[in-house]
Amino acid sequence: MADIDSLPEFLASAIDAAKRAGEIIRNGFYETKHVEHKGEVDLVTETDKACEELIINHLKQLYPTHKFIGEETAAAQGDTELTDEPTWIIDPVDGTTNFVHGFPFVCVSIGLTIRKVPSVGVVYNPIMNELFTGIHGKGAFLNGVPIKVSSQTELISSLLVTENGAKLDKLTVDTHTKKLNSLLFKVRSVRACGSLALNLCGVACGRLDICYQVGFGGPWDVAAGAVIIREAGGIVYDPSGAEFDITSQRVAASNPFLKDALVEFLDDALFLSLYLKALLPKQLSLPTDRSAHGFPS
Amino acid sequence: MADIDSLPEFLASAIDAAKRAGEIIRNGFYETKHVEHKGEVDLVTETDKACEELIINHLKQLYPTHKFIGEETAAAQGDTELTDEPTWIIDPVDGTTNFVHGFPFVCVSIGLTIRKVPSVGVVYNPIMNELFTGIHGKGAFLNGVPIKVSSQTELISSLLVTENGAKLDKLTVDTHTKKLNSLLFKVRSVRACGSLALNLCGVACGRLDICYQVGFGGPWDVAAGAVIIREAGGIVYDPSGAEFDITSQRVAASNPFLKDALVEFLDDALFLSLYLKALLPKQLSLPTDRSAHGFPS
Repeated sequence: MADIDSLPEFLASAIDAAKRAGEIIRNGFYETKHVEHKGEVDLVTETDKACEELIINHLKQLYPTHKFIGEETAAAQGDTELTDEPTWIIDPVDGTTNFVHGFPFVCVSIGLTIRKVPSVGVVYNPIMNELFTGIHGKGAFLNGVPIKVSSQTELISSLLVTENGAKLDKLTVDTHTKKLNSLLFKVRSVRACGSLALNLCGVACGRLDICYQVGFGGPWDVAAGAVIIREAGGIVYDPSGAEFDITSQRVAASNPFLKDALVEFLDDALFLSLYLKALLPKQLSLPTDRSAHGFPS
Repeated sequence: MADIDSLPEFLASAIDAAKRAGEIIRNGFYETKHVEHKGEVDLVTETDKACEELIINHLKQLYPTHKFIGEETAAAQGDTELTDEPTWIIDPVDGTTNFVHGFPFVCVSIGLTIRKVPSVGVVYNPIMNELFTGIHGKGAFLNGVPIKVSSQTELISSLLVTENGAKLDKLTVDTHTKKLNSLLFKVRSVRACGSLALNLCGVACGRLDICYQVGFGGPWDVAAGAVIIREAGGIVYDPSGAEFDITSQRVAASNPFLKDALVEFLDDALFLSLYLKALLPKQLSLPTDRSAHGFPS
């Protein structure tokens, strides 16, 4: 079993891998403007695959006994179960839509869990040249400088980030926009920049006060961000207030002061129905008469 | 009357002013983390005022016959009428909320209208070190490199940016979120980054395909962006499809291919009621029975 003393070495290896993948992303980023739509799709797929292969090969060579969960691999092979073994959880390109359009919020996210606890995290934006890192028990950094979450205590003064996400079923979109409607009266302002891993790092360095999202790709979006936020003095939790589950596709993050107010705000029937839907086996479906649930038309 | 041959000189002067103001913004940006809330408010006000004074003094010295409309001055003195005279329209700090929180989408915006036509534009983000410039008839640039709008032709593949804005009356927020609800099914994804001037520049350089906003501060948010977009091959128009009016607090921008689809999408009673509200004299009010209009509860 990996020792806690090895964490700085693991971090150095992850940074190395992230920087190499970052070069591929940077090249592709400036190339998207010169390819046609079909070419764009290929470029994304190729960049995603090339980055994931590079990262996994790099780390596997150094740590042959470790496990790996990558977004691309998971998409091809179905979900991979998270065990207690040291497991590298990798999103080779987070913010794929931004990547395609040339919008500079794009990153590599590499997290390491040990006994299921996020222990090392690297989030690297090669376009803005921002490297966020965190080691369990040893702090969080942006380009080597220590970072900490904001000291904001009031929801009404908070800058919040949340994304519409990739899931476009009506329940998800209705829930998102209905929540946004009430949020706009409860917080200072709302941002949506298209990368959950970078959103979490934005909270870690205090640029943003709160991030929450329900329904996203998988653990690769949050594995690195979770340790970076915690090491920056923040907390990561389920939007219901329960303990954070890295495999649940639900996440909220803030400093400790804002948690209760956010959880109270998010705690309603509409939002819970979305959780329920995520729990339901795929063969079941929600009642078709949605008017009884008070959804907007 | 200013001659078109003077435009490059006007641009150089505006860049000079923007870079000097950018230094003040950069200093304040990294200072916000170290001041208490009351201090934050003062810092914003001071930065806003110091930048506007610097820019106006700089340009007034060079062009004593020109007119000036600045956000801070207008807030203090009421709206200043736009005439045919060469008029510098200045937003000393666009993205004030971002500035306070340390979120890096912050800029200086300096536009020059001649015979009410936006003729020179400078938008400078001193944190990300991005300088967008445009001269009527002579192109648009990012850090000196020519830029152009995207070649996207389909709404469904477009990356759109719009902001909730600073106006928090129920009609504005309901309209915004109801539109967002249907937009999420019509475009690829939606961003909200908190600076209209930078959003317009994002469209100009093709990072974003569409920007629209109804209800914002004033002409200082759009005067520079309008010329930069047009010079990048894009178009600026009223969200209703009508001609762009720099004083109207309504703007849409995209490449020419996307205009019809966007206008068709935005053209409905809900949105028009918002326009109507903006047109109504302040002593009039909308009917209080809003249920008849089909607003969400």
